[in-house]
Amino acid sequence: MAFKSKPTITAFQRSPDGGRGLARDMRVRWALEEVGQSYNVRPVSFAAMKEPAHRAIHPFGQIPTCEEGGLALFETGAIVFHIASRCEGLLPSETNARVRAINWMFAALSSVEPVIVEREVVLYRERDESWFEQRLRLVEDRIRAKLTDLSRRLGNADWLDGQFSAGDLMTVDVLRRLGGSGLLEEFPNLAAFVARAEARPAFKRAFEAQHAFFNAGAKV
Amino acid sequence: MAFKSKPTITAFQRSPDGGRGLARDMRVRWALEEVGQSYNVRPVSFAAMKEPAHRAIHPFGQIPTCEEGGLALFETGAIVFHIASRCEGLLPSETNARVRAINWMFAALSSVEPVIVEREVVLYRERDESWFEQRLRLVEDRIRAKLTDLSRRLGNADWLDGQFSAGDLMTVDVLRRLGGSGLLEEFPNLAAFVARAEARPAFKRAFEAQHAFFNAGAKV
Repeated sequence: MAFKSKPTITAFQRSPDGGRGLARDMRVRWALEEVGQSYNVRPVSFAAMKEPAHRAIHPFGQIPTCEEGGLALFETGAIVFHIASRCEGLLPSETNARVRAINWMFAALSSVEPVIVEREVVLYRERDESWFEQRLRLVEDRIRAKLTDLSRRLGNADWLDGQFSAGDLMTVDVLRRLGGSGLLEEFPNLAAFVARAEARPAFKRAFEAQHAFFNAGAKV
Repeated sequence: MAFKSKPTITAFQRSPDGGRGLARDMRVRWALEEVGQSYNVRPVSFAAMKEPAHRAIHPFGQIPTCEEGGLALFETGAIVFHIASRCEGLLPSETNARVRAINWMFAALSSVEPVIVEREVVLYRERDESWFEQRLRLVEDRIRAKLTDLSRRLGNADWLDGQFSAGDLMTVDVLRRLGGSGLLEEFPNLAAFVARAEARPAFKRAFEAQHAFFNAGAKV
């Protein structure tokens, strides 16, 4: 199974993270690379993201979006789910294993990512507040609690539940946001899990494609 | 379509919110009521939630979980998705409309809920900090930004995308967490959206079932 027409995704016109590959189109690019589906990328400027034309697709004025065959999706989890549902390679074929992989997609986005994003909120918006150091410590302790649970569950396994799935992809890309914080390194099996995923050819292709895209944009 | 065996969900043994119906098993009960699927409920104490036996099902040591036909799920979004996928009544049958409803499930959990939960973190864990008032204002402004976008998208429609779906169920149950904050009332179409959903017979049955369950537990 595959898409009938080549999907078009949106991405930031300029990299907000200096090419560290953290913008959320990375997840979608990676998923598309895993299933071998080619795609188009349409850049959106920070100003255009908040305009009605883009908001007609993405009500929260963000990227990525994915347009394909008359369907316009705006939420990263839903886009990766859609790719994984329609194309082979990101969800097991056995029914229960498939649902468990989807469970990990929701878990990554709903149980793990929010507090990691909250750390970024502290760093970007509260750096000049008197409480900055204290709040950062509180948030990092909340992250450690999540990572402790996740690390315990992963144990010595390569992936969260059998073969690599969209659930691993999403969890890894959420954990990648901790790069540079030192937090991931406190949990060696999680750091190895992320490294194992980043070594996948599909991840590398996605990372390089995003990088090349930003470089091309920077030259315009 | 339906489940072959009656699913068993877990719920808090005692209500942490004095019966306001905010514990997350509410979403699962509501989904089960919408599709007309009966279920069993197994209470879990706050201590037992963190024990290995429960963590074998829920790695983050929370409720709800859902066990059914050899499958054990632990993430609310995944459980509601599973119910909506296997039973009739929560997802449109038309393919694209179905994916768009799933998109709203992910959006509710990933784009809307985190900052609403963050407000609860401020209220429960930072009340005695010097920054409490200031942080609460910052978080409430972030919530307002999300609600502004959501309100704009909903407009005058009854539901987010055509007929009532699992996307509306999840979005409404996320917005219900704002009850008592006054924030929802700043957006009359969102307040009406929540009221419209709470008037559904399935919601009422779920709410009453959760309430009765807590009352029975309180008498033990």
